[in-house]
Amino acid sequence: MKDTSGYLEKKAFYNSLLTIYGRKPVLEALQNPSLPAHRLHLASSNQRDQVIKRIEALAEARHIEILHWNRKSLSRISKNARQDQGVALDLALPQYSTCDAFIRQQSSIAKKTPFELLALDGITNPQNLGMIIRSACAGGMDGIILPRKGCAQIDPLVIKASTGTLFKTRILRCDTLADALGNFRKTGTQILGLSSHGSVTLTEITGKAPRIFVLGNETHGVCDAVARQCNRLLHIPMKNGVESMNVAVTAALISFRGQL
Amino acid sequence: MKDTSGYLEKKAFYNSLLTIYGRKPVLEALQNPSLPAHRLHLASSNQRDQVIKRIEALAEARHIEILHWNRKSLSRISKNARQDQGVALDLALPQYSTCDAFIRQQSSIAKKTPFELLALDGITNPQNLGMIIRSACAGGMDGIILPRKGCAQIDPLVIKASTGTLFKTRILRCDTLADALGNFRKTGTQILGLSSHGSVTLTEITGKAPRIFVLGNETHGVCDAVARQCNRLLHIPMKNGVESMNVAVTAALISFRGQL
Repeated sequence: MKDTSGYLEKKAFYNSLLTIYGRKPVLEALQNPSLPAHRLHLASSNQRDQVIKRIEALAEARHIEILHWNRKSLSRISKNARQDQGVALDLALPQYSTCDAFIRQQSSIAKKTPFELLALDGITNPQNLGMIIRSACAGGMDGIILPRKGCAQIDPLVIKASTGTLFKTRILRCDTLADALGNFRKTGTQILGLSSHGSVTLTEITGKAPRIFVLGNETHGVCDAVARQCNRLLHIPMKNGVESMNVAVTAALISFRGQL
Repeated sequence: MKDTSGYLEKKAFYNSLLTIYGRKPVLEALQNPSLPAHRLHLASSNQRDQVIKRIEALAEARHIEILHWNRKSLSRISKNARQDQGVALDLALPQYSTCDAFIRQQSSIAKKTPFELLALDGITNPQNLGMIIRSACAGGMDGIILPRKGCAQIDPLVIKASTGTLFKTRILRCDTLADALGNFRKTGTQILGLSSHGSVTLTEITGKAPRIFVLGNETHGVCDAVARQCNRLLHIPMKNGVESMNVAVTAALISFRGQL
């Protein structure tokens, strides 16, 4: 029994790590002393050029464990052989977590505290994902649910487009969004899907409550399985017959609503 | 004297045309019966493939004059030899105009009517320009000032990113932004520059008035000559220590302020 619990603990720990990759993102993360780096992974095939030497020196100065791997093993760690450039870094960010852990944490608090999250469904453009993170962070959203399936993943482009805000934002991971939303619903969280034919307008959603706004794909909207988990479908009132806006703009309008 | 006035009238007419180019944008514009097309320009070197035949047939059906040019003359019309694909179309959009014409029009109205415009300074990314137009249109802004110098120009990427809203939005052209803003100031228009170190917050700007919000380059902000024309510098209050947002997101927050 002890072994099992050890395994689960270990799994939970690894799930709590954000692995970033690419020379520039890793170098910049190591240069930022406020980012708790856990382990540095390098491909043994890397040429030891100036950037790699700089990365190694920073990791050593910060007493971060350095592991060397063959190319194939490294690509299993980065999960992106094409873009990792032989470098990956595990970050132990306190704000990077899972939907399950967040729900457990909320349930353990005696009095329900209101929160507002954005959940992303089918957001495949990394530029948009980065902009959503940046706007949600600036607007004071409590976090973003980013499923492992069907969305862009955190890659160098996303990190760049988020202009550093990725590391300040609560990012909650799950496998499939519909399942995670189902679990949130059981705890009484309002699930609100954005849709151009939503019957409720965003202005009608007032007061504080545990609440999730679901943003769908720009072309197809939220998928059926996710729509079934929504308590209500919302639209943003638009002028001049405009039917939709860029998804990052929608995220910003939700995050700043009532503030401007 | 008559000749001069004829020349000026002609010049004013040509300034009032929006010339778009590229096979897809031109084809889509011709397919939209609500867009008043003036003249179609084709390079005589074009291969008469399906798309060109379609474009010609649509122009003929709509009784639009078709002019044939050599490659060099066509690129003088499109002003973009690399992207015009041998096709350009003059649109006579009632909403496409110049700052001078807009100022004259406002002065001729006895009672001052309030308006709110966005002015763009150094917005070089076509994706951002398209998103700004889309958000400003959806939020009900009265128009966008787009200078000929220092900004992205209306090209196929901008038209695509604006998702058709370009043709519904008042676009006011000028040569240099600082001069145009100077002319607006003389008529009592408030010029408000967005800046991360602006002393006024956006929430303090209430009530209706003739007003222009100036958006600067994402990296450098508004340029000095433009900043000198601003009555005040504004910032948007942001949380979590975020210092700036994407310029299209900023445009959306201004356009929707007080509405959400």
